[in-house]
Amino acid sequence: MNADHQAVTVIGLGSMGSELASALLDRGHPTTVWNRTVEKARPLADRGAHPATTPREAITASPLVLACVLDYEVLRSVLEPVAEALAGKVLVNLTSGSPEQAREMAGWVRSHGADYLDGAIMTTPPGVGSPEMMFLYSGPHAVFEAHRPTLAALGDPLHLSDDPGMASLYDAALLGLMWSTMTGWLHGTALVGAEKTPATAFTPIAVRWLTAVAGFLTAYAPQVDAGRYPGDDATIDVQIAAIEHLLHAAEARGVDNALPELLKSTMERAKVAGHGSDSFAGVIEVLRKSGDQQ
Amino acid sequence: MNADHQAVTVIGLGSMGSELASALLDRGHPTTVWNRTVEKARPLADRGAHPATTPREAITASPLVLACVLDYEVLRSVLEPVAEALAGKVLVNLTSGSPEQAREMAGWVRSHGADYLDGAIMTTPPGVGSPEMMFLYSGPHAVFEAHRPTLAALGDPLHLSDDPGMASLYDAALLGLMWSTMTGWLHGTALVGAEKTPATAFTPIAVRWLTAVAGFLTAYAPQVDAGRYPGDDATIDVQIAAIEHLLHAAEARGVDNALPELLKSTMERAKVAGHGSDSFAGVIEVLRKSGDQQ
Repeated sequence: MNADHQAVTVIGLGSMGSELASALLDRGHPTTVWNRTVEKARPLADRGAHPATTPREAITASPLVLACVLDYEVLRSVLEPVAEALAGKVLVNLTSGSPEQAREMAGWVRSHGADYLDGAIMTTPPGVGSPEMMFLYSGPHAVFEAHRPTLAALGDPLHLSDDPGMASLYDAALLGLMWSTMTGWLHGTALVGAEKTPATAFTPIAVRWLTAVAGFLTAYAPQVDAGRYPGDDATIDVQIAAIEHLLHAAEARGVDNALPELLKSTMERAKVAGHGSDSFAGVIEVLRKSGDQQ
Repeated sequence: MNADHQAVTVIGLGSMGSELASALLDRGHPTTVWNRTVEKARPLADRGAHPATTPREAITASPLVLACVLDYEVLRSVLEPVAEALAGKVLVNLTSGSPEQAREMAGWVRSHGADYLDGAIMTTPPGVGSPEMMFLYSGPHAVFEAHRPTLAALGDPLHLSDDPGMASLYDAALLGLMWSTMTGWLHGTALVGAEKTPATAFTPIAVRWLTAVAGFLTAYAPQVDAGRYPGDDATIDVQIAAIEHLLHAAEARGVDNALPELLKSTMERAKVAGHGSDSFAGVIEVLRKSGDQQ
């Protein structure tokens, strides 16, 4: 059996776990599955998965064990009674949680003689199996490299750090970016929608604009690392003036302005802190710990 | 003279106006420029632009007049004394302002026998001239089509609507999306930065994630237009639970949580309004005018 057809166990068959198992089956991996309620295993068994009847049987079946359950408490409750079965295995935990939980779980798993990778799935269940979708991993790099071919069945595997907490930290940061972006998009959609523009007309232009915005982020990132934010033509002062157009246009159309008001006040805090002639990247100075002093 | 080498006048030679004139010169357009302070015209004159000494001379020189000045008041103060020179011209106004200002200006310009297009430049000055950058226009479609080849010298010209106010409205909506996205990115950058991750390490992953987020927006847009938001696996309830991870992780690291707190409270308002099992797109219901009732 080569690495491309490594046996894998999937623990947890919610919508995400089922897609993980399905993607492994698609690539020809001998796949063992377990779920607390056995019904979830049936569609996968019909496709050739082996349904384990106990967590012990599931863990024993494969050198690589993926876990994707509701939360860390559930995972501990499944694993603790069969902890000694983990020895020599690799547990890849795709359950959502905090960096602290991931680090604690890594320590517990290692104490039972197993290797541990923590992962974050940066897609919805239908995106699992697509090589375009990012799966972020943290934990020992050598363990990641050894299992990269198998993990590639799920999506594009990226290793962040040997620190097992980093996948969760990135997950939180990226979801925050997602909610910010989606809420900003809905605000804009509501604004143009007030003048009868369909969301399906506005959104292709918004999506294309995000490509330009991504270019701004890429330009600003080295400024953040340098702690210097040359403003050139797009200073925080200029943006504070420009956001008034948005506030007025939205207010005139009855669109809720809580988000742009917050964005404006955040820029104004940066201005007060001396960053008015800096680029927008200077706003990070009031978001970081040091910004608490204000 | 074919359309590719139409004579063009540029009024206003700030950093953006100078780039507009420069892009026109690059494409071989006979270009007349005017600025209140004449020094700004010199670098362009050195490259072959004709520096007009008065607004009247500037307007008279070309059938197509681009204006890019500080605001609408400044533009009116330049044009009013020479309004009769506008007859038979096309004024393309790239000055930032509100939809109401654009509509009023359109009426005034037409009353002097000229055609009017309003435009929004969706890039910073260094991006002018790139065919990737969007220039949004509104006003009579036939006027836009007649001058599209010339406008293509500046960037990719997109016509939104015959209503001259729509370019400004889109501009406001897209800038709101930009500030939301940039602030969300800075929050995430501060979060991972608290664990020594450079912005230049996080940002390529954030940029790639934005591509996935753009896919979510594209999927949600028809839901907004239909007024129905099937939640599938990513309901507002699920996202409210998930944002707790972000809030806790950020609070533990001293990162300012005003933005994610607002995002959470916005989702909670949507839940209270009955959208807990809807997709995130259901949040628009509390941003629109109808949301004011709560």
